[in-house]
Amino acid sequence: MTDTLSDDALDLIFREARSYNGWHDKPVTEKQIHQIYELVKMGPTSANQQPGRFIWCTSDDAKKRLSECVSDGNTDKVLTAPAVVIIGYDLDFHENLPWLFPHTDAKSWFEGDEEGRKESAFRNSALQGAYLMIAARALGLDCGPMSGFDQDKTTKEFFADQPRYRADWLCAVGYGDRTTIFDRSPRPEFDLFNKVI
Amino acid sequence: MTDTLSDDALDLIFREARSYNGWHDKPVTEKQIHQIYELVKMGPTSANQQPGRFIWCTSDDAKKRLSECVSDGNTDKVLTAPAVVIIGYDLDFHENLPWLFPHTDAKSWFEGDEEGRKESAFRNSALQGAYLMIAARALGLDCGPMSGFDQDKTTKEFFADQPRYRADWLCAVGYGDRTTIFDRSPRPEFDLFNKVI
Repeated sequence: MTDTLSDDALDLIFREARSYNGWHDKPVTEKQIHQIYELVKMGPTSANQQPGRFIWCTSDDAKKRLSECVSDGNTDKVLTAPAVVIIGYDLDFHENLPWLFPHTDAKSWFEGDEEGRKESAFRNSALQGAYLMIAARALGLDCGPMSGFDQDKTTKEFFADQPRYRADWLCAVGYGDRTTIFDRSPRPEFDLFNKVI
Repeated sequence: MTDTLSDDALDLIFREARSYNGWHDKPVTEKQIHQIYELVKMGPTSANQQPGRFIWCTSDDAKKRLSECVSDGNTDKVLTAPAVVIIGYDLDFHENLPWLFPHTDAKSWFEGDEEGRKESAFRNSALQGAYLMIAARALGLDCGPMSGFDQDKTTKEFFADQPRYRADWLCAVGYGDRTTIFDRSPRPEFDLFNKVI
């Protein structure tokens, strides 16, 4: 096993990767979606909660339904992307802890604590969404994350069969068209947002 | 530039990486901490908010202070790790948007919306924390994320000079000792937490 990533690899997943608004006409296959999740699920979540719930919209019908839940600026992005994943979470993720975290009775830490569960589900599903973007890039795909949408409407439309799931944000996945991106926004100097003590 | 990561590289950042509870006696240098952040800041955040605020505790004094803010099970982990980073966020991140996102007046989207800012800061700083773990692994380090600590006490102790910052979770960084990890917890099958539609 290698000890560090090469410069090329760091370029691919961090330094040269960009958020895309438009896409080449090339599908994302179900096999690729599975490959992404096989990496996502290996990323750490607190007590292996794995609270993220993912709906991958790849059909025209699914993208049409989703496009009706997003802000005007995101409608075309949703309709034209090869795939758009709804990143949600399960407010009752703790029900799975007996098998996801068999070392100890982690389920009991969360019983009766709906606020604590919500915070933990929100934080840890966001981590999983970040793993998802890094994993997609690592597999040669590009991402276009979006938070301009109606969470409640999306939750009702896509998680109707799972009343404890909540939609949190969206991410388009495909082969990005370089002509559709903005200039790279400025990045902060270390000392502005970091301290070493 | 490479198009995909090698299997070795995927092992390093996802498949073989583990969360550590104990560490080899080898320091994390300030240079390495800068290298991590140089990657973290390239990761996408909504409207380039960059809400994450990071305090890297590397001195014995800083780790001692932090150890007094964590749950009993995490005291030794904090004291013995080469570095522990407090991952926080800025509730007023929008004040920086005029220079972080110069394309448009994104600051106005968040003015007067404290709840919306909190949600966005929380979600996007969590993404940045995930980038931090992947970046550390990519640079040959290991991580030990922790959420068992007193957020309010840590905020008061470490962000006293920044009344709008909040501590959210902790991550030890160093060279992990393989003898200190548990067996890998089970990972879910794709169909359990995903749907393709």
